[in-house]
Amino acid sequence: MSDNALPLVISAPEPRTLDLIFTQPQLARLRSKYRIVETTADGVANLPADVLAQARYIVGQPPISPDTLDQMKALRCVFNVETNLINNMPYETLFARGIHVVTTGLVFAEPVAELGLAMALNLARNIVDADLAFRQGRELWGGDGNLTARLLSGADVGIIGFGDLGRALNRLLSGFRTRTKVFDPWLPPSILIDNGVEPASLDAVLSTSDFVFVVASVTSENQGFLGADAFASMRKGAAFILLSRAGVVDFPALMAAVKSGHIVAASDVFPEEPLASDHPVRALPGFLRSAHRAGALDIAFKRMGDMVLEDMDLIDRGLPPLRSKRAERETVSRMRSKPADRN
Amino acid sequence: MSDNALPLVISAPEPRTLDLIFTQPQLARLRSKYRIVETTADGVANLPADVLAQARYIVGQPPISPDTLDQMKALRCVFNVETNLINNMPYETLFARGIHVVTTGLVFAEPVAELGLAMALNLARNIVDADLAFRQGRELWGGDGNLTARLLSGADVGIIGFGDLGRALNRLLSGFRTRTKVFDPWLPPSILIDNGVEPASLDAVLSTSDFVFVVASVTSENQGFLGADAFASMRKGAAFILLSRAGVVDFPALMAAVKSGHIVAASDVFPEEPLASDHPVRALPGFLRSAHRAGALDIAFKRMGDMVLEDMDLIDRGLPPLRSKRAERETVSRMRSKPADRN
Amino acid sequence: MSDNALPLVISAPEPRTLDLIFTQPQLARLRSKYRIVETTADGVANLPADVLAQARYIVGQPPISPDTLDQMKALRCVFNVETNLINNMPYETLFARGIHVVTTGLVFAEPVAELGLAMALNLARNIVDADLAFRQGRELWGGDGNLTARLLSGADVGIIGFGDLGRALNRLLSGFRTRTKVFDPWLPPSILIDNGVEPASLDAVLSTSDFVFVVASVTSENQGFLGADAFASMRKGAAFILLSRAGVVDFPALMAAVKSGHIVAASDVFPEEPLASDHPVRALPGFLRSAHRAGALDIAFKRMGDMVLEDMDLIDRGLPPLRSKRAERETVSRMRSKPADRN
Amino acid sequence: MSDNALPLVISAPEPRTLDLIFTQPQLARLRSKYRIVETTADGVANLPADVLAQARYIVGQPPISPDTLDQMKALRCVFNVETNLINNMPYETLFARGIHVVTTGLVFAEPVAELGLAMALNLARNIVDADLAFRQGRELWGGDGNLTARLLSGADVGIIGFGDLGRALNRLLSGFRTRTKVFDPWLPPSILIDNGVEPASLDAVLSTSDFVFVVASVTSENQGFLGADAFASMRKGAAFILLSRAGVVDFPALMAAVKSGHIVAASDVFPEEPLASDHPVRALPGFLRSAHRAGALDIAFKRMGDMVLEDMDLIDRGLPPLRSKRAERETVSRMRSKPADRN
Repeated sequence: MSDNALPLVISAPEPRTLDLIFTQPQLARLRSKYRIVETTADGVANLPADVLAQARYIVGQPPISPDTLDQMKALRCVFNVETNLINNMPYETLFARGIHVVTTGLVFAEPVAELGLAMALNLARNIVDADLAFRQGRELWGGDGNLTARLLSGADVGIIGFGDLGRALNRLLSGFRTRTKVFDPWLPPSILIDNGVEPASLDAVLSTSDFVFVVASVTSENQGFLGADAFASMRKGAAFILLSRAGVVDFPALMAAVKSGHIVAASDVFPEEPLASDHPVRALPGFLRSAHRAGALDIAFKRMGDMVLEDMDLIDRGLPPLRSKRAERETVSRMRSKPADRN
Repeated sequence: MSDNALPLVISAPEPRTLDLIFTQPQLARLRSKYRIVETTADGVANLPADVLAQARYIVGQPPISPDTLDQMKALRCVFNVETNLINNMPYETLFARGIHVVTTGLVFAEPVAELGLAMALNLARNIVDADLAFRQGRELWGGDGNLTARLLSGADVGIIGFGDLGRALNRLLSGFRTRTKVFDPWLPPSILIDNGVEPASLDAVLSTSDFVFVVASVTSENQGFLGADAFASMRKGAAFILLSRAGVVDFPALMAAVKSGHIVAASDVFPEEPLASDHPVRALPGFLRSAHRAGALDIAFKRMGDMVLEDMDLIDRGLPPLRSKRAERETVSRMRSKPADRN
Repeated sequence: MSDNALPLVISAPEPRTLDLIFTQPQLARLRSKYRIVETTADGVANLPADVLAQARYIVGQPPISPDTLDQMKALRCVFNVETNLINNMPYETLFARGIHVVTTGLVFAEPVAELGLAMALNLARNIVDADLAFRQGRELWGGDGNLTARLLSGADVGIIGFGDLGRALNRLLSGFRTRTKVFDPWLPPSILIDNGVEPASLDAVLSTSDFVFVVASVTSENQGFLGADAFASMRKGAAFILLSRAGVVDFPALMAAVKSGHIVAASDVFPEEPLASDHPVRALPGFLRSAHRAGALDIAFKRMGDMVLEDMDLIDRGLPPLRSKRAERETVSRMRSKPADRN
Repeated sequence: MSDNALPLVISAPEPRTLDLIFTQPQLARLRSKYRIVETTADGVANLPADVLAQARYIVGQPPISPDTLDQMKALRCVFNVETNLINNMPYETLFARGIHVVTTGLVFAEPVAELGLAMALNLARNIVDADLAFRQGRELWGGDGNLTARLLSGADVGIIGFGDLGRALNRLLSGFRTRTKVFDPWLPPSILIDNGVEPASLDAVLSTSDFVFVVASVTSENQGFLGADAFASMRKGAAFILLSRAGVVDFPALMAAVKSGHIVAASDVFPEEPLASDHPVRALPGFLRSAHRAGALDIAFKRMGDMVLEDMDLIDRGLPPLRSKRAERETVSRMRSKPADRN
């Protein structure tokens, strides 16, 4: 087949790059099956008319005006590999025309869930401070070092949000025989039950759990919804693990709850990233910090390439994409998670 | 029933205490069903003849001479709640008479497995040093902080030893879809296969795993069996997690392998405990330290009381004990794990 | 709230009835939350203009003309409770307007999977003929009656089609430690792998399985795709279990393969239903028959009501339906499964 | 090694044969590692003195007198491959000398559990009578044929006895999300809980289950313990599946309960085997019959050879047997299950 006969893909994946999200063999496969036109996000609007007219796929989340979209007669799917949906394209028109908009954020679920579980176990066993004490010759041996130690096995666990990440976390917990309650107002209870967890109110999740994992996206409705009252309602000594976005939490209230000794906490996300060098969370005992490292593993990025290739293959065969997650008409405009400007 | 009609229990559980291993309700139950004679380990030999003659159970691991044993006509079971068998009683005679000797070490399996998993995830994600850097304002954000980060999900895992602890660890791994190889020369391969793991040689476990967990007891045959060659055969960057006894490892060789950067490691056990304040492992980068804290949780000790009560109840009804682990004629004399002198 | 302020639902669920798919408490809940206009499928077109204009939901699969649809300005979702999509409404327009078309066939997955597993075990152990022999005093005792008996545990299993039913079947198999291969050209391989099964070609599924389950829907592309060659490629003595639609199979070829003794088979579906009284499959040894009874359990129908209520609740709150299965633009026109005319 | 230097095995496995329980490669392996002296059960006592003196293992359950045992100085293990322990050897002396007596009945657990599950599904869906009706042209289509149909998924299940067979059954049920209660007075509750089932009284198991599986061995205490009162306490329409031994049931009372329509039942075992040709159970509607075929699969017998070889290997290396099940001093004399006189 002459190269010109190959389906055309516009590539503008920033801040990702094709090399980040495809292994070399995958990239070779991509190039063998498609004609790739690489540009910047802002460059898409200025692509030649024939490129726009022929493009079957976009890899990236470039701004697209209604006029530009109108020219893209062959467009079938936008692969948003940054994964946070922003309001820079006419989603309604895309949906009306049956053009899929998909995100590849599923790849982060497993790495984030692993870090979240690790954080929970660290808080339960105080691993960081115990190692520091050991370095300094002040370690406590045996039971003397375990006065606040707890088990995750058999514990009451609460999960706030049950998308890909909540499910990945629940899967990792499968060997721990926890009693797990989930609050997710966007899901019907029966789906939670089918996943082996108990649907619960936010209050119940907060007040009856030993470990609370927050994995909910920020939406127009839930910014800062976890504040001082929420933390006060938690069990004394319980652990709060924040994995999704700092925006869902009143961060000063969280720090205050930890400082008071009522709860312990861990977070991968912060109100500003990077964080001011004198931010008080840096010195807060009972708080475990991670600098937005939970998902950004090379192995995760490379799985994006798999997903994109698998879904392009389905769409090429006249089938709907199944591997990536589709943006939904109803919820696309409610999303408020800030896109990453780094990988 | 008059108190004297109750079956008699000799209690000499040091270094445990009845209050450590029984909750208050359990202890009340014990006292309501049995007549308890409390003494020290060394005091057992000097108990009155009628106490020795009537004792149905011993809780503890006191030295017992053949003569003393000969007086204990009603003895049915010795509950070793320290859990490391030492050679201070005539085991052959006990077995010949059908007196059970059982240990309650199962209670430690779950807490130790949780710490082991936590250590593996810590090594994979470098959680301790990342938190330290964050405290000091030198944290690396996002992917920049993940250059050596790895996933446990889908990894090759090796487990050396597949007793209660190996099985508990394997259960915790059930949500991680690992490919798990096990070396345990005391078990037939089919039992490993039934547990969903792959029987393997020691060489295969060491050389083809991303994470190696050592959970084997020390025996007369395996002291120091993991040395420089073993560590050299491991994959570059693999993680070695030592959870059972330092005696199975050539500790200086382990430190050298970590120092060279070939592997990373974590350990809950050390050649001497407590450890000299200037021991070089205290300052070794790439090594995560825990001061024999893995199992010694209050919740674990309290489960011992459950086990003892459940097995006493079975034996009282003419049935064999099933909850505690029976010492075996064939292996009792091979055990070399040093008993704990603290809880 | 005055009844007229309630959202309006058009109910035309034939061949179902509201009493079939809702329990009494569910039906009361439906009526308390919505204004229900009950009609026949053919009656929808003739409903008063204000009813059409206000209808938020349709329960059923009535014929809808473009003109009628044009009047239905408030329509948000069509709940197809018959569950086989037929080409009697302008799907493209529905999709373009963002109106969901959903089916509730998931409720049948579990009952059908249970019957399918039962059929497989029946074929493996020859339960029907053994019971008949026992009734007649000709039973064979012990191993004498087990000459062709096989285990499902540890067997090679093949599944053709991996929609809701294939997944339900796979879940039921989870205790059997089977090696399971799946052929489903509409799914990317990674989704199969995530479900713990091995993606495979049709040939591989047929030729290397001890039990082959057919749970694929009939589409415009796969009618009669399992014919004499397919059966000849199966292992001698293997079991073929047909659960979805007779249309995917060359039925005379299947009967011939069973008659020859090459395979055994079971089917819940037949080329005509009801079947001619002299159809040769009625007398075919090695063939287990069920008269399209696999899914039609009252408990399954009642779960439809749950699904409808849960998804209406989500849509009422501005969220997409998640419990029912959405028709897809790409595949809706390929479906060829004949609707049921009975329950 | 000269053949005479090989450890000696006395083989008297009747009613089994070496060819039944070993595959050809296993048998070759047995013969290459051991010197086999084949005899009948009754022939053991008459073996030459040097054979008795050198025998390390016995495969079979021959009668052994105290005198004969006294000559067997090297005996380490008796492998009872019939699997029902009878009182024909001095067990106390065997135990006192540390000679293991093991049974290989575990091999039957999986086949019996599969038939038990199949029976439950057959009763739930009335598969036998539906196929018979289909053969005769009187089948009922769709829901018309499902008036009494039930699901096992999500049902209340009761298991009486939780040895190897109960556990195998519980494993097969793992995909069915049942609520499973177990009655087993020989096990501590915590072991049941660890297996994910709920310890319960016999009354609770009987009166709150939709499916009751009886997998308890006959002992001196439980003969006929399931009688008219037990069946009357069951839920209307519940299914009773008898898999272990007819001796635990009052069989006429079971038939009466089925005949009355109160319950349905299935059984693999009968008061006499073979059964009189005019026994009324042969014609009892609502009763599914199997002629003691549940366990006697060739694949099961062949697994015995694996077990024997694995445990001989362990014992040869000075370790205790782990694969076979050890007879226990406390319970060996209580067993009353009649040995099989056929395979």
